[in-house]
Amino acid sequence: MRQEVIARIVHAMLDVGLDAIVAVSPENFAYVTGFLSPTQPLMRWRHAMALVTADAQASLVSVDMEQSTIRAKAPPGAEIAVWREFQFDAMTVLADLMNKHKLTASRVGIEMDYLPAADFAALQELLPLVRFVPAQRLLSRLREIKTPAEIEVLRRLSRIADRSITEACRAAGAGSSEMDIAAALTRGVYEQGAEYFKLMIVATGERSVFPNVGPSERVLKKGDICRVEIFPMIAGYHAGVCRTAAIGAAPPQAERIWAKLTECKHLLLDAIKPGASTRKIYEIYRDKLAELDLPPISFVGHGIGLHLHEDPYLGPTEDQPLEAGMVLGIEPLVYETGFGFGMQNKDMLLVTQGGCEILSDYLDTDALLIVA
Amino acid sequence: MRQEVIARIVHAMLDVGLDAIVAVSPENFAYVTGFLSPTQPLMRWRHAMALVTADAQASLVSVDMEQSTIRAKAPPGAEIAVWREFQFDAMTVLADLMNKHKLTASRVGIEMDYLPAADFAALQELLPLVRFVPAQRLLSRLREIKTPAEIEVLRRLSRIADRSITEACRAAGAGSSEMDIAAALTRGVYEQGAEYFKLMIVATGERSVFPNVGPSERVLKKGDICRVEIFPMIAGYHAGVCRTAAIGAAPPQAERIWAKLTECKHLLLDAIKPGASTRKIYEIYRDKLAELDLPPISFVGHGIGLHLHEDPYLGPTEDQPLEAGMVLGIEPLVYETGFGFGMQNKDMLLVTQGGCEILSDYLDTDALLIVA
Repeated sequence: MRQEVIARIVHAMLDVGLDAIVAVSPENFAYVTGFLSPTQPLMRWRHAMALVTADAQASLVSVDMEQSTIRAKAPPGAEIAVWREFQFDAMTVLADLMNKHKLTASRVGIEMDYLPAADFAALQELLPLVRFVPAQRLLSRLREIKTPAEIEVLRRLSRIADRSITEACRAAGAGSSEMDIAAALTRGVYEQGAEYFKLMIVATGERSVFPNVGPSERVLKKGDICRVEIFPMIAGYHAGVCRTAAIGAAPPQAERIWAKLTECKHLLLDAIKPGASTRKIYEIYRDKLAELDLPPISFVGHGIGLHLHEDPYLGPTEDQPLEAGMVLGIEPLVYETGFGFGMQNKDMLLVTQGGCEILSDYLDTDALLIVA
Repeated sequence: MRQEVIARIVHAMLDVGLDAIVAVSPENFAYVTGFLSPTQPLMRWRHAMALVTADAQASLVSVDMEQSTIRAKAPPGAEIAVWREFQFDAMTVLADLMNKHKLTASRVGIEMDYLPAADFAALQELLPLVRFVPAQRLLSRLREIKTPAEIEVLRRLSRIADRSITEACRAAGAGSSEMDIAAALTRGVYEQGAEYFKLMIVATGERSVFPNVGPSERVLKKGDICRVEIFPMIAGYHAGVCRTAAIGAAPPQAERIWAKLTECKHLLLDAIKPGASTRKIYEIYRDKLAELDLPPISFVGHGIGLHLHEDPYLGPTEDQPLEAGMVLGIEPLVYETGFGFGMQNKDMLLVTQGGCEILSDYLDTDALLIVA
């Protein structure tokens, strides 16, 4: 268990008058414990939960199937209540645990944006005197400011992503397929120590205009633009980096658009510092795309960590000041340039006391990457 | 849209007196449409939904961000209602769509085991006269019997998994790391045409006793047992195959345990046919492990398709007859042999009219795979 995180959660729950918080999503389970329950992200019924009480005790709920893995990762003597997969009794076991911790008639925060409606109905029936309130915002707000250990793993992941993408692009050329890029890229992330990855985007040629598409059998030809992104993972944490490469030579208009995206990147890097408004950061991107007569997307960046998109978003709707310790994915991009290709440059940044620092520092992206 | 699937859903909804069904999970969205909404499986708030009405009309709800991708994959003229990510209005857009289809005071099935409690509460408030009932069981029951097109993609995926694992194991030896196996394995699945994968297990030596662990930096040595599993994906479909290999030579007891698991596999293959009881199939596995004085896990197989675990489960608690057209992952295994290693052999099977057919037919697993 992470004592620093538990202390933060307790502080926040006392502020809003909660007696306990139940983390039910994979990311908040990992936030409390420091590790993922392996199959929870894949099978949503395999609930793994962490109960944190106002007196700073943390206890876990695990499915029988994952019990040995969780016990091996949790500190010795940790309280782990085990439910049985085919008895479907996760909510009963959680309710028993809450009763044991004298929460029978308490005020408890829970992630209402994760817990399925059927499970919540069951829990309410088991604990009719508990007042459940949404806790997702409290937890996501805490997760915005990373601990030193979180920053370290995000720095490592940023370099893994950047280097793997760059090397996979450099190994590609006319005649390779998107699957070849994918194969080189996944090999790269694992060889460099990632445990898993999410959302690999390999979008080349006419496919480069689509936001979130994986690799296809498409064969590359000279003049193709390639958008390549991956989110490698370690211990539940993600970095997201995207690079754009041209095969052999850039198509007409590509250098001009890339230069604008690069100008935009530097304006963003100059503006990102503690106290800067997330909305004003977004407006830098929106205005730069306006110079190209191209449409912006609905954000130019977002927090990243235990989820591949976290608060804060840098977009037009909400506004908040940036703070030191935030880690952001910043992605000046245009999907549809009007010339049959899209371009994206996504970096990982740490907001520091004095400004910001690029964590994805393997490739210098000021010039468009041209390969083979 | 898949007309055959929509017809099945309509038939089932009329049977239980529903006016419409809303598919809200990634797998049921893909079941209706034939494709995944790319980031829905990764960001649960990026709702993609399919509304199927009793008159066999299907319309979609998409987040703005994925609109271009979904429109490119859906048939021309398909009705797609778009919600705006940062207006958080997915439920409002769904409610409007339901009103448009005259479902304002109807009986509607929805996946209560997926829809988050907060979204369900919002939907109930928007549509106070609609009676929502759980639809997850109806949909999972339909998905148990695969269409010919589904069987074809599962056959392809089974071979991709089997061959990739076998080749990655054959390339490993004393001195390679689990990350090397992972790198070769992921390269293999993409080179053979998978679009993505889930849950790669690389568990070697003393780590081979843990159920669902990814690769680590552990370096292999002679006599290690390696459990390697992967679920490659195409169009939302998964195959799950697991192989066990020994590095250089099998440790004492491994050949004896493998022979029992092989006996078990053949008993299972003989027993699996239309009409066979899922519980009795499980008992074959349980009894065979009893001969070794080893504990069984809580199932020996499960349906597989758009989710990596689907109904029916072959376990001790529920019971149902197998039917032709089911695709099953069958995995006689023991995690903790008592000798510091675990062993697992997981095949993909199709239940046929006359019995069953192995879809993962690349490696003959009767003898333990010994590499390097």
